[in-house]
Amino acid sequence: MDFTALEIAKKLNGTVEGDANVFINSLSKIEDAHAGSISFLSNSKYFHFLEKTKASAVIVSKNIKVSDRISTTLIRVDDAYAAFTQLLILWSESSAKKQVGIHKTAQVDPTAHLAEGVFLGAYVCVGPNSILEEGVQVHAHSVIGADVQIKKRTHLHPRVTLLDQTKIGAHCILHSGVVIGSDGFGFAPQGQNSYLKIPQIGNVIVHDHVEIGANTTIDRATLGSTVIQEGVKLDNLVQIAHNVEIGKNTVIAAQTGIAGSTKIGAHCVIGGQVGIAGHLTLGDGVQIQGQTGVIKNIPSGKAIQGTPAVEYKSYYKSYALFKRLPSIESRLSSLENNR
Amino acid sequence: MDFTALEIAKKLNGTVEGDANVFINSLSKIEDAHAGSISFLSNSKYFHFLEKTKASAVIVSKNIKVSDRISTTLIRVDDAYAAFTQLLILWSESSAKKQVGIHKTAQVDPTAHLAEGVFLGAYVCVGPNSILEEGVQVHAHSVIGADVQIKKRTHLHPRVTLLDQTKIGAHCILHSGVVIGSDGFGFAPQGQNSYLKIPQIGNVIVHDHVEIGANTTIDRATLGSTVIQEGVKLDNLVQIAHNVEIGKNTVIAAQTGIAGSTKIGAHCVIGGQVGIAGHLTLGDGVQIQGQTGVIKNIPSGKAIQGTPAVEYKSYYKSYALFKRLPSIESRLSSLENNR
Amino acid sequence: MDFTALEIAKKLNGTVEGDANVFINSLSKIEDAHAGSISFLSNSKYFHFLEKTKASAVIVSKNIKVSDRISTTLIRVDDAYAAFTQLLILWSESSAKKQVGIHKTAQVDPTAHLAEGVFLGAYVCVGPNSILEEGVQVHAHSVIGADVQIKKRTHLHPRVTLLDQTKIGAHCILHSGVVIGSDGFGFAPQGQNSYLKIPQIGNVIVHDHVEIGANTTIDRATLGSTVIQEGVKLDNLVQIAHNVEIGKNTVIAAQTGIAGSTKIGAHCVIGGQVGIAGHLTLGDGVQIQGQTGVIKNIPSGKAIQGTPAVEYKSYYKSYALFKRLPSIESRLSSLENNR
Repeated sequence: MDFTALEIAKKLNGTVEGDANVFINSLSKIEDAHAGSISFLSNSKYFHFLEKTKASAVIVSKNIKVSDRISTTLIRVDDAYAAFTQLLILWSESSAKKQVGIHKTAQVDPTAHLAEGVFLGAYVCVGPNSILEEGVQVHAHSVIGADVQIKKRTHLHPRVTLLDQTKIGAHCILHSGVVIGSDGFGFAPQGQNSYLKIPQIGNVIVHDHVEIGANTTIDRATLGSTVIQEGVKLDNLVQIAHNVEIGKNTVIAAQTGIAGSTKIGAHCVIGGQVGIAGHLTLGDGVQIQGQTGVIKNIPSGKAIQGTPAVEYKSYYKSYALFKRLPSIESRLSSLENNR
Repeated sequence: MDFTALEIAKKLNGTVEGDANVFINSLSKIEDAHAGSISFLSNSKYFHFLEKTKASAVIVSKNIKVSDRISTTLIRVDDAYAAFTQLLILWSESSAKKQVGIHKTAQVDPTAHLAEGVFLGAYVCVGPNSILEEGVQVHAHSVIGADVQIKKRTHLHPRVTLLDQTKIGAHCILHSGVVIGSDGFGFAPQGQNSYLKIPQIGNVIVHDHVEIGANTTIDRATLGSTVIQEGVKLDNLVQIAHNVEIGKNTVIAAQTGIAGSTKIGAHCVIGGQVGIAGHLTLGDGVQIQGQTGVIKNIPSGKAIQGTPAVEYKSYYKSYALFKRLPSIESRLSSLENNR
Repeated sequence: MDFTALEIAKKLNGTVEGDANVFINSLSKIEDAHAGSISFLSNSKYFHFLEKTKASAVIVSKNIKVSDRISTTLIRVDDAYAAFTQLLILWSESSAKKQVGIHKTAQVDPTAHLAEGVFLGAYVCVGPNSILEEGVQVHAHSVIGADVQIKKRTHLHPRVTLLDQTKIGAHCILHSGVVIGSDGFGFAPQGQNSYLKIPQIGNVIVHDHVEIGANTTIDRATLGSTVIQEGVKLDNLVQIAHNVEIGKNTVIAAQTGIAGSTKIGAHCVIGGQVGIAGHLTLGDGVQIQGQTGVIKNIPSGKAIQGTPAVEYKSYYKSYALFKRLPSIESRLSSLENNR
C-alpha cells in the first residue's frame, strides 16, 4: 500500500510538518528505517536517531522540540506510541489476506455446523456436533474434536488442537501448537507406589477476546470446567492445569505454570516462568515478578516475588542483604573475636 | 446414561440413605451440582455444601454425621474419594466412543504391521517397519516414523510425533503435541567458538502404563536408549534429555526439565518447573519441591528444595531467616554501635 | 553396515592393537556393548569397564596404559572422544536414508518455488511465493506459510510450523513441534484494564547452521526482525520473544525464555530454565547458570547466577551462608545475650 504522509496524518488526527506529499509504503523502527518508511518516537533515549533517520516520516508527540536540521517529515499527534499502534492496526488490516472457503482436504463430520464465511485450511479436521460461527478462521492442520464450539471471528493459526467439548469465545486468537482440552494430571495412589488415572470428564471454556500463545497447553477439568475469562492474554509455552480459573484481562508471560484448581483474579500481571501451586486463590490486580513461586493465597493488589513468594519490596530488601551475606558474616565474626 | 442411586450404590459396594430410585445422569462437583447429578464429599471444608446442594445424590463416607435437614440421597461407602474415582472410571468407560478402523486418508507404509482393532484417525502417518499392536488408537495428525513399536491398547491423542525407532509400551496415553525421539542436544566444540553436531543414533523406550502430557518432549539417546520405566506419569511441557532414565512410577509435574544422562529412581515425586542437571543419580522416593534446581546426586528418600537444592526443612529454616535479613542486619549494626 | 576394525582405524587415523579383522556392525556405550559393537573410552571413571566389556573394539587415546588381560581390539587415536564423534558422523551419514521427491499429498501453492532435490513428506503445506532451495527436506505435516525462504540443505522434522515471511538459513535443523513466526506478545493497555493487540508485522530470520529443539517457539518481530545468528543451538521448549537477537554460536539449554527486544551476544552459554527480561543487552561469551533470572545488562565474559542474577562466585558465597543462616542467627542471639 502507498499513502502520503498527509493521508496518514488525517487517519491519526495529526498535523504534518515538512513534505506532506511524501509517499509511505512501510513501517519501521527508527533505527532501521529507510526511504518510504514511517517510524515513531516516544522514548527519549531514541531522540538522537531523529536527525539521521532515513525514514520519510516520523510520528512524534505534539510537545517535543526538534532541531532545525531535521529533514524527515514529522506527523505531530497527542501520543506518538498510541498513534503508531493505531497505524499498525490500520496497516495490518489493510494488508490482511482474508481467507475464505473450505479447503478440499478438510475433513468435516456431517453433523458439524459451519456458519457463513468460515475458513478451513488444508487438512483441518472438525469432529461431530462441533459448531463454528460466522467468520471463524481455522488454518492448516488444526484438529477440532467433537462437540466443540467456536464463536464468531475467532482465528486458529496452523496446527492448533481443540479436544472434545472445548468452548472458545468470539474474537480469540490461538497460535500454532496450542493444545486445549488435554487431560488434567490426576492420579489416585494405589498399592505398590503405582497410580490409577482419574478420568477427566470436564472441559475447557475460553471466553471472548482471549489470545493464547504458541505451544501453550490448557487441560480440561476433572469435573466442571477450566475457565479462561474474557480478555485474558497468555504468552507462549504457558501451562494451565485442570479446573484453574483465570480472571478477566489477566496477562500471563511465557513459560508460567498454574497448578490444578487455582483461581486467579482479574487484571493480574504475571511474569514469565512463574509457578503457582494448586488450590490457591489470588485476588484481582496481583502483580507477580518472573520466576516467582506462589504457594499460598495472595490478596488483591499485592506485588510479589521469590520462592516462596513474599512482597516484592521485602524480597528486594532481603536479596540486597543476601548479596552482602559474606560481609555480614565477617562483621559477626569480628564482633565475636572482640568480645 | 441413566442410573438409579441404588444401581450406583451397588457398583460401589455402598448403601443408600433416602430415595434409592432417583435418576442420575451426570457427575458434578458438589458446589456446581444440579438435579440429576451425583457428587461426593471427602474434604471437611466442603461439608457445608451438603445442606444446600442441588445434587440428586452425594457419595459420603460411612462415618460422617449429617444433619436432619438434608434432602439429597446419600450413598455411604468406606472411602468417598476412592468410590467417586471408581465411579468416574465406570462413567468414562461407559461413555467412551470406541473408535476403530483406518481412516481413508491415513498413510501407512506397506511394510508397517497393524494388528487387529488398531484405529488410525485422519491424516495419520505410519512409517516403514513400524508395528502397532492390538487396540492401539492413533488420533488425527499423529506422525509415526520408521521402525516404531507401540504395544497393545496404547492411545495417542491428535498430533503426537514418534520419531524413528521409538518403542512405546502397552496401555500408555500420549497427549497432543508430544514429541518422542527428537535429537538429543549434543555438540562438540570446534575452533572459532562454533560447534559440531554429535549424531544422536540411540532411541527412546517408554514402558507400560506411562502417561505423557501435552507438548512434552523426550529426546533420543546419543547411543543406547532414553528410558521411561513402567507407570511413570509426566505432565505437560516436560523436557527429558538424551540418555535420561526415569524409574518406575515416578511422577513429574509440568515444565520440569531433566538434563542429559541423569538417572532418576522409582516412585519419586517431582514438582513443577524443577531443573535437574546432567549426569546425576537420584535415588528412589526422592521428593522435589517446585522450581528446585538439582546439581548433585540425591540419596533415596530425601525431600529437597532450593537452587541449588538442599534438604526441604533446611531450606525453609534458611528462607524464614532470609525474609528477616533486614532485621538481622539491624541487630548486627546495633551490636556494632554499642560495643 | 559392516566394517573391520582396521577399516575404522584408517578412517580415524588410528592404529590397531589386537584383531584388526574383527567385524563391527554397531556403536555402543562401553557398559552396554556386545559382540560386533565398537565403543570408546575417554573418561577415566569408565576405565574399569575395559577388561569386561563385550565390545569387539574400543577406541582409546594413544597414551593410556591398559592391562594385559584385555581381549577386545583397541584402536589408538590422539583424542578418543573426538575420534568417536567423527565415527558417529560417518556412521549416521552412511545409514541416513536420503529422502527425495514430493509426496502426492503435499499441498504446494503454484507460486512457490521448489529447487532440485527438495523433499516434501506427506501432508506438507507450502504457501504462496515461498522458496525452498536445493536439498531442503521437509518431513510430514510441516506447515510453511507464505513468503517463506529456506536455504539449501536445511532439514525440517515432522510437524514444524514456519509462519509467513520467515527466513531460514542453510544447513539448519528444526525439530518437531517448532513454531517460528507466531505473533509477539504485545498489547497496549486500554480503559477498564483491557488490552488492545499491537499487530506484529515483522518476521523471524534464522541464519545458517542453526539447530532448534522440539516444541521451541520463536515469535516474529513487531517491526523489523527477530534474529537468530549463524551457528546458534537452541534446545527443546525454549521461548524467544519478538525482536530478540541471539548472537553467533550461542548455545541455549531447554526451557529458557528470553523476553522482547533483548540482544544476546555471540558464543554465550545459557543453561536451562533461565529467564531473561526484555530490552536488555548481554555481551559476548556470557555464561548463565540454569534457572538464573536476568534483569539488567550483562557485560561480555561474565558468569552469572541467581534471581536477580549476580556474579556466579558471589552467588555461591552468599548461598553457602544462606544455608548457614540458622547458625548465623544463633551466633547473633548469643552475642546479644552476652553483652
